[in-house]
Amino acid sequence: MIRIGIAGYGNLGKGVEAAVKNNPDMELVAVFSRRDPDSVKIKTEGVKVYPYDKIADYKDDIDVIINCGGSARDLPESTPAIAENFNVIDSFDTHAKIPEHFANVDNSAKSGNKVAIISVGWDPGMFSLNRLYMNAILPNGNDYTFWGKGVSQGHSDAIRRIEGVIDARQYTVPVESAVESVRNGENPELTTRQKHTRECFVVVEEGADKARIEKEIVTMPNYFADYDTTVNFISLEELQRDHMGIPHGGRVIRSGFTGFDLNTKHTIEYSLNLESNPEFTGSVLAAYARAAYNLSKAGDSGCKTVFDIAPAQLIDKSGEEIRAHML
Amino acid sequence: MIRIGIAGYGNLGKGVEAAVKNNPDMELVAVFSRRDPDSVKIKTEGVKVYPYDKIADYKDDIDVIINCGGSARDLPESTPAIAENFNVIDSFDTHAKIPEHFANVDNSAKSGNKVAIISVGWDPGMFSLNRLYMNAILPNGNDYTFWGKGVSQGHSDAIRRIEGVIDARQYTVPVESAVESVRNGENPELTTRQKHTRECFVVVEEGADKARIEKEIVTMPNYFADYDTTVNFISLEELQRDHMGIPHGGRVIRSGFTGFDLNTKHTIEYSLNLESNPEFTGSVLAAYARAAYNLSKAGDSGCKTVFDIAPAQLIDKSGEEIRAHML
Repeated sequence: MIRIGIAGYGNLGKGVEAAVKNNPDMELVAVFSRRDPDSVKIKTEGVKVYPYDKIADYKDDIDVIINCGGSARDLPESTPAIAENFNVIDSFDTHAKIPEHFANVDNSAKSGNKVAIISVGWDPGMFSLNRLYMNAILPNGNDYTFWGKGVSQGHSDAIRRIEGVIDARQYTVPVESAVESVRNGENPELTTRQKHTRECFVVVEEGADKARIEKEIVTMPNYFADYDTTVNFISLEELQRDHMGIPHGGRVIRSGFTGFDLNTKHTIEYSLNLESNPEFTGSVLAAYARAAYNLSKAGDSGCKTVFDIAPAQLIDKSGEEIRAHML
Repeated sequence: MIRIGIAGYGNLGKGVEAAVKNNPDMELVAVFSRRDPDSVKIKTEGVKVYPYDKIADYKDDIDVIINCGGSARDLPESTPAIAENFNVIDSFDTHAKIPEHFANVDNSAKSGNKVAIISVGWDPGMFSLNRLYMNAILPNGNDYTFWGKGVSQGHSDAIRRIEGVIDARQYTVPVESAVESVRNGENPELTTRQKHTRECFVVVEEGADKARIEKEIVTMPNYFADYDTTVNFISLEELQRDHMGIPHGGRVIRSGFTGFDLNTKHTIEYSLNLESNPEFTGSVLAAYARAAYNLSKAGDSGCKTVFDIAPAQLIDKSGEEIRAHML
């Protein structure tokens, strides 16, 4: 059994907890939280919640820590710290800061003789992996990534910060005609606006100035200004009835050319349709925890990404089994 | 530069030749053929064709041989023989005999201190890889593989062997309603007949008994009897005008469940739409030739499959570059 610890028990931590339960070769040993442990109620019977700052005390009891903190403030500090004592997986998703995070985690993991795998999930993660495979196979061509339809937590949070807003959900929606054009091998050049639209469902305080709020949303730089954005004002009851899920997904498409004169067209597409973003991401993290465990047992150490992990390391089956039944 | 040799110059060999030309870090050094070398005209200027039985003479001039022979009679003998002297890639696709082929190639490659990667292409190959990733992430669920629309060479050949048939093309066509049902997460149980239909375009001799030929096709065991098969008799001119391409493709879909009580649904889909099956397969083989070269340089040896190869090995970019730009 691979002994798993979870650091951080928000939506992602809960998704990991379920994934560990659904993998017969894994067992959850402990959850670590920065909140008062007595206030954190987890689903797995018989497993305890401990204060995050006591995590190092459990270094001999846990094979892999799945670090479920946030990318903005938590993971840059916590993953290197954890890597000194444990094999560790995180879902660091601030693309521009991945090289710096990699270097920090690599230093700690090597000094601790542990394996760390960072930026695991679906984007970064499975989407990155597919982009790499597609580019290796079809070096001449163009990549396209479409997200959604799905809830963007960051955009929902941005709306919530506007004065007069009680709650909000923002859906990122791919433009179907753009997806079709790419699929047909037309290799279009697409602006930000041509690829996605943004749909907002907003609950406001009684008497709030809806016109002002709508304008603040659609003109918000970085988040909405470059998109066609629709704002729907709804009641709190409607929000709670129709918009409590966290679905997401998307697709990576590469349209490429082969042949002596590059005249032959091919399309490769990888798509995800997810009812729960955190449960799916948690399931990816669990699979890579298995890889970290296997690599550590084999004597490896240091920081890795999904690019460095051979697929066979991810699955609870022998080489003979996968060659005979999955190849 | 990675120095590539091609063994066998049929459609697949030609596809590999084009792929090598389109990868700036590779050069074609030689083609080996069992035919009279003077009768084999290749496209790459300045590269020679040599008799296949002289291949071992070139062991110091070539980094990787891409073996483009057929799975039925050629590869079981030739890949182990080549692996004694060269790193080697093949596209062995007789699923039931993969374990035996793996063992034979592994023995030779280890005794020759070379790296061999077998069963590379898209099925087996990229489809297998995706099945493995999908199963590792979503251990609870069902896999579905649909092929086509595309030309099946084996089925076309089977029709050609019928008395009175001059030429034929057989297209494997997925049943769209079945694909939709899977995509919608309905987890249907599908019979062979419910997943694919077969469309045949057949040219017959003048005065041939079309009724007998059609009956021989649609009742042919293993090839057609379990499918809804359509037979179209056409002229040789029509065949040459409309059916000379070798398109193929297909999709692997996994419909799986997550959550503490497995109540959350997800769909992962990987699909290929290929104008030329041999050119795409050749492009996959070239990418894995790069991996064999890298692993051999790092001191590795023995037989591998796509399951054993970390994605980073496939691409002509450093770890720093792919982390900064593709993750």
